[in-house]
Amino acid sequence: MLYFGGDYNPEQWPREMWAEDLELMRQARVNLVTVGVFSWSRLEPRPGEFDFGWLDEVLDGLHRNGIGVCLATPTASPPPWFTRSHPDAMPVTREGIRLGHGSRDTYCVNAPAYRCASVRIAAALGARYGTHPALKLWHVHNEYGTWCFCDHCAVAFRSWLRARHGSLEVLNACWSTDFWSQRYGDWEEILPPRATQYLRNPAQELDYRRFLSASFTEHYAAQREQLRGNVAVTTNFVLGQWVPVDHARFATEVDLVAIDHYPHSVETSLGERAFVADLARGWARAAGHPDGRWLLMEHAPGAVHDGVLRSLEPGGISAAARSYVDRGSVGVMYFQWRASRGGAEQWHPAMVPHEGPSSSVFTELCSLGAALADQAPVAVIADVAVMYDEESMWAWRSEHLPTRHVDYETVVRQWHIHLASEHANVDVIPPWAPLDSYRLVVVPALYLMSAATHAALRSYTGKLVITCGSGVADEHARITPGSLDDLIGARITGRTFDVPPGELWVDHVEPVSATAVGPAVYQNGNVTFVARLAPCHWEERDLNNDAERRGTAAA
Amino acid sequence: MLYFGGDYNPEQWPREMWAEDLELMRQARVNLVTVGVFSWSRLEPRPGEFDFGWLDEVLDGLHRNGIGVCLATPTASPPPWFTRSHPDAMPVTREGIRLGHGSRDTYCVNAPAYRCASVRIAAALGARYGTHPALKLWHVHNEYGTWCFCDHCAVAFRSWLRARHGSLEVLNACWSTDFWSQRYGDWEEILPPRATQYLRNPAQELDYRRFLSASFTEHYAAQREQLRGNVAVTTNFVLGQWVPVDHARFATEVDLVAIDHYPHSVETSLGERAFVADLARGWARAAGHPDGRWLLMEHAPGAVHDGVLRSLEPGGISAAARSYVDRGSVGVMYFQWRASRGGAEQWHPAMVPHEGPSSSVFTELCSLGAALADQAPVAVIADVAVMYDEESMWAWRSEHLPTRHVDYETVVRQWHIHLASEHANVDVIPPWAPLDSYRLVVVPALYLMSAATHAALRSYTGKLVITCGSGVADEHARITPGSLDDLIGARITGRTFDVPPGELWVDHVEPVSATAVGPAVYQNGNVTFVARLAPCHWEERDLNNDAERRGTAAA
Amino acid sequence: MLYFGGDYNPEQWPREMWAEDLELMRQARVNLVTVGVFSWSRLEPRPGEFDFGWLDEVLDGLHRNGIGVCLATPTASPPPWFTRSHPDAMPVTREGIRLGHGSRDTYCVNAPAYRCASVRIAAALGARYGTHPALKLWHVHNEYGTWCFCDHCAVAFRSWLRARHGSLEVLNACWSTDFWSQRYGDWEEILPPRATQYLRNPAQELDYRRFLSASFTEHYAAQREQLRGNVAVTTNFVLGQWVPVDHARFATEVDLVAIDHYPHSVETSLGERAFVADLARGWARAAGHPDGRWLLMEHAPGAVHDGVLRSLEPGGISAAARSYVDRGSVGVMYFQWRASRGGAEQWHPAMVPHEGPSSSVFTELCSLGAALADQAPVAVIADVAVMYDEESMWAWRSEHLPTRHVDYETVVRQWHIHLASEHANVDVIPPWAPLDSYRLVVVPALYLMSAATHAALRSYTGKLVITCGSGVADEHARITPGSLDDLIGARITGRTFDVPPGELWVDHVEPVSATAVGPAVYQNGNVTFVARLAPCHWEERDLNNDAERRGTAAA
Repeated sequence: MLYFGGDYNPEQWPREMWAEDLELMRQARVNLVTVGVFSWSRLEPRPGEFDFGWLDEVLDGLHRNGIGVCLATPTASPPPWFTRSHPDAMPVTREGIRLGHGSRDTYCVNAPAYRCASVRIAAALGARYGTHPALKLWHVHNEYGTWCFCDHCAVAFRSWLRARHGSLEVLNACWSTDFWSQRYGDWEEILPPRATQYLRNPAQELDYRRFLSASFTEHYAAQREQLRGNVAVTTNFVLGQWVPVDHARFATEVDLVAIDHYPHSVETSLGERAFVADLARGWARAAGHPDGRWLLMEHAPGAVHDGVLRSLEPGGISAAARSYVDRGSVGVMYFQWRASRGGAEQWHPAMVPHEGPSSSVFTELCSLGAALADQAPVAVIADVAVMYDEESMWAWRSEHLPTRHVDYETVVRQWHIHLASEHANVDVIPPWAPLDSYRLVVVPALYLMSAATHAALRSYTGKLVITCGSGVADEHARITPGSLDDLIGARITGRTFDVPPGELWVDHVEPVSATAVGPAVYQNGNVTFVARLAPCHWEERDLNNDAERRGTAAA
Repeated sequence: MLYFGGDYNPEQWPREMWAEDLELMRQARVNLVTVGVFSWSRLEPRPGEFDFGWLDEVLDGLHRNGIGVCLATPTASPPPWFTRSHPDAMPVTREGIRLGHGSRDTYCVNAPAYRCASVRIAAALGARYGTHPALKLWHVHNEYGTWCFCDHCAVAFRSWLRARHGSLEVLNACWSTDFWSQRYGDWEEILPPRATQYLRNPAQELDYRRFLSASFTEHYAAQREQLRGNVAVTTNFVLGQWVPVDHARFATEVDLVAIDHYPHSVETSLGERAFVADLARGWARAAGHPDGRWLLMEHAPGAVHDGVLRSLEPGGISAAARSYVDRGSVGVMYFQWRASRGGAEQWHPAMVPHEGPSSSVFTELCSLGAALADQAPVAVIADVAVMYDEESMWAWRSEHLPTRHVDYETVVRQWHIHLASEHANVDVIPPWAPLDSYRLVVVPALYLMSAATHAALRSYTGKLVITCGSGVADEHARITPGSLDDLIGARITGRTFDVPPGELWVDHVEPVSATAVGPAVYQNGNVTFVARLAPCHWEERDLNNDAERRGTAAA
Repeated sequence: MLYFGGDYNPEQWPREMWAEDLELMRQARVNLVTVGVFSWSRLEPRPGEFDFGWLDEVLDGLHRNGIGVCLATPTASPPPWFTRSHPDAMPVTREGIRLGHGSRDTYCVNAPAYRCASVRIAAALGARYGTHPALKLWHVHNEYGTWCFCDHCAVAFRSWLRARHGSLEVLNACWSTDFWSQRYGDWEEILPPRATQYLRNPAQELDYRRFLSASFTEHYAAQREQLRGNVAVTTNFVLGQWVPVDHARFATEVDLVAIDHYPHSVETSLGERAFVADLARGWARAAGHPDGRWLLMEHAPGAVHDGVLRSLEPGGISAAARSYVDRGSVGVMYFQWRASRGGAEQWHPAMVPHEGPSSSVFTELCSLGAALADQAPVAVIADVAVMYDEESMWAWRSEHLPTRHVDYETVVRQWHIHLASEHANVDVIPPWAPLDSYRLVVVPALYLMSAATHAALRSYTGKLVITCGSGVADEHARITPGSLDDLIGARITGRTFDVPPGELWVDHVEPVSATAVGPAVYQNGNVTFVARLAPCHWEERDLNNDAERRGTAAA
């Protein structure tokens, strides 16, 4: 059975509407709703005083109607009383500006008071609802990714660096601190990469993203401890180049990989949906779930592009849903069930729009719910893979790079579309995923390569395609000239960017053991090296129509 | 008699030039000058020590030459000594950055020290000049609108909210705080809408603009108390979408509505002038001045567009002046009399440009002064009106709205131009203006509608045209689906934005009692509903040539 | 002998590579390297504890290989221990944000602790290496120009203003403080031009740039005192419109004018190189070095434009070098010798790129080194000059100016290219340079003109071409209408900007003694006045091909 439903926020509505909600959910064949994501100020109206009555009623009502619950801990939005009592727990920008209450995600993940309050509310929820019959899934927090540069973070960053690097000598080497006289003589001298006079140290920036990712994981794990039982625990990943989370690593901490997905544009949305679905599956597999199952926790039956709300084409809601399900999602979930009357996301598309259940959106969702009701999750088997690495994505976005014309995600997505048009299924995998099960692995523009990744590529015996822009630096952004020479059987004697105009990156190649097999393409045993990155605008055709060719099989 | 003149800042010039000024003013038939707007540091060189000698001399000189005085309180620009003594009275940005001295408007309108200093200087001026024979008008402050987010404002905001909402329960409901866990349990938890992690609460933002507007009004009223006598008191409104002032409400506090006007571009300037003139008259009428008289306190004999200074066409100065006078302005006033040699506005166009009185600008102004000398103020009678609401303008600009392509002011102005091309005169009125005197009222895109506005539209028996984008939300930005259904005799079943491209907003309409009378136009008794907003680019032709058709009559 | 080499940062590399460096330097005929620019944290790892061993070894090795040393004081990048001990010595932005460690140039030039630490390290270097046989040149600091608005600067600014203006009365007049009620009654009221509510005072802004320039000069002079000996002392000027340094004045403090140069685009680079070379020579001459010798301390064998790294055309490295040498540079120096593996400038083009000495860049540099080896510095004699004034450049960039379409540097460069295509050599000179040696001087758009400049132009008897946009204001940005009338023999009765579109500035001219000799060109004795600025896009042809026509002579 596939999950079908969305975020349900009954506390935003008069109690009289709850019965109508249940009736409409049954009508749409909703079988799972996410509850409690933004309920902290209702669940704990004053510090340590809990009010679960209304939530009991909601969960009981859902259960009576055969609707499961994905129960969230509400820690992504601390209540005003928390903010007022703990100003030191508010996030601080690079510039040192302490943000205030009045939105969501107003916390520093490393603030002791916030950690403590998070565990307390999670424990209370775990104790009360851990065995509730409606409970199907725990949903810790929401969309981890809030940046902070405060002094709590500075302290935690130093501890994390000590553990990572062991000694200042190693840190100084990894961060190349001899450039610009940044050599550290004492751990206490090290700061988060705050606003500074000119370009920041790229290795420090990378380590800070890693540190934040680890901080979020720690915060998650502390809540998970309170929820342990027979019910799976997860969190919903938010995708976006700004997000300081290494989701591939985080995936090893969740029982079911869950993602939220909002494409950048209506026009490219199906290609984007295919990519992130194959990516979520790749994360699930790499994290030790060989069936590659994952869950689309949030998406929208509509879109906001360039600041303008747009509808999907008729049939577009179902096409979108299929593009995830066909690639292994165990459900189709939306944000949110009912469009809010007030608040900052009152215009977010919803299952029940402002105009009510007679709207075409709700009608299409009812058809979709009916169609999904008899369908089992799809087991996707892929023997080709394309590598995508969020750390490399961070590196490509570094402010000091003179390659502003290269968008790593676009480069990888173009390879993904190309492969998906020729192969049944394509996994999108992190660099440290086992490669043995694939007969073809494509590695586009993998800027950062650790020694482990270098070794893994050399051990791999299938067909390996690697493009320029790969192996440019080690994991600390230190440039590693010639690091691929033995693998590709050639020497790279130079690099050209943007010449001729439109070209993104061209390596100048001197073949040693390799043979040129096409323009800028070199073959060396099982390894093919593509010496140019071009902004080829692949036509993003509807990959969902190719479902039969991908040979997906119902499990 | 019409007023003719401008801001006169003799303290910027050597005393030797004052005689030349008077001579040139007489030559140009100037009969009113605004004095003292930026004179605080001259009038009160040290706290509580006043120096009125030079101002006595200026006023006496003007009086001897038959020139009236619009005397300003100088509170828009506190002197450096004030800043130094009261750093807490400097404005603070959303980000918490306290601004420093070195420009104008460096104050927090809610800072006690600033309030106190403002009243002191106003009282001193009132006492000394309240009966001066040159005095024709009091001009309190200058262009109210300086934002502040400091702690003084936080305290004052909470008081204002208590008075407005009465209880936290009501505030929580009005602000939809159940979204994103923002429910307040204590008044002290409430903050100004400062920089926060993500989107702000739109209802909080609206209330903050209202609160600032009320704060300015309070500051104005406290000064007015010091000036009460036989001379009218006003302040000059500055127009601009950034301005947190509800001028329609503020208009009820002034004896004569006065506005400053600087069009956005030379090309659209005549249409803009017509609009704001009709708007100022609408404010005057709604505020209880049935003759609709108002005053153009500032405009410029030139323009700065896209950062480049531009001249008006020959004759353009007079054409501009006429466009205001024909719509009820009791005068034609400029900023400023003589172009400053130094300071931040040294390039602002002026009546006497840097090149001196031989310039073509001064020559044209002399002709204009002569032409106006015998003219009486125009009494404008209008039986059609278009509604414009600054609160709705704020709502349309809210950062959370997915309608970035809609510019409310442009939408209203297009209707205004359309109406002005077909009707003699058009009042531009706020939602709460009495409607009985109009036979036709157009309500374009009135996003916010209070219960009172809903009732007023239903009571109106003339021809009412209302467009989509109206009645979308109540005054707290809470979406109110179907709120217009009974009025327009139809159900709105959905909304589309930007499809087809170029369309701004299309409502999907299911007529009940209404009849379709044209593409996207529905008639229901006296009410016409226009179901689309289109960016029709009306030709902004010279409305001033149509003066005879508008049938304006000299009073 | 010409200098040939670049910045050498051996501390960034394992000691094993130093021998290879020396070998490659000999191969490329390198004869001067700049050492120590970013070595503070290696040279003084803890406050007051010096480690010179490694630098001894580097200098000895270079000397043994016949390579001279330009030894830098490392004060542009204080070590982390400094930052940690002296947070008050970090720079503060206009907004009051104190920047943190983590880049370069993290200091306030007016902070006492920083001044003290700078002198200490300079003294230690002077004492140890002042007589080292490899030492050819002292290189104080690096690219002065870091802005700061902190309280140390406020204090120092007030002292500087007291010295400059003498009395508050004079300052108030110079700053036109009667505009916007900014009249100062006490020196303590004066602040740096920090973030304020609206436009800042343009005279205050100009004086603040002058003050920073003086602060840098003071900091330089304090170090120079520690280095005095038989070796010349200089600093490397960085060019850029953001730089608050009056380099023409600063040039009077150095023994050899040295500049760093990074053109804005590949396409215009040769024109830009010619301009800055002629400018550096002009600064050297005006500073009292009649031979006009100067040194290109840094440039790049490549370029970054619009955020993308680009190579020069084959031969482009030599063409660039020649364009400087032909105009009087006594050397060709690069940043940097070897491309860094890590750090924020790891992608900066270098003499030995990441790919190593087999790269085409290094090959071309070896040819260039060989070609330069036998060449003596060029003595350039010019009898025409174009005036360029960094203070006027600041004035043109002022935020309050309604001439956003005018880029002063482009205007002057167009005249420079025009002159350079017709005359052998062209000096680019500051307004206070002696003019007697030139038969033609062109003064384009010299916005600010002091009384001294006015007098100098009137004393000059050669052919003087002056364009509109000149003499608009005095040195305090106070507009001076008619200030050129007697010189150009005409009255300027008005000014038009951007009409017709594309025109930058047109003066309306009424000839008195002048005669119109072409469209918008007026002749008055030896003075030609050009009454328009047009954005004529001169073709930036390769001025280097014209070397013979320029008649440069080897000294």
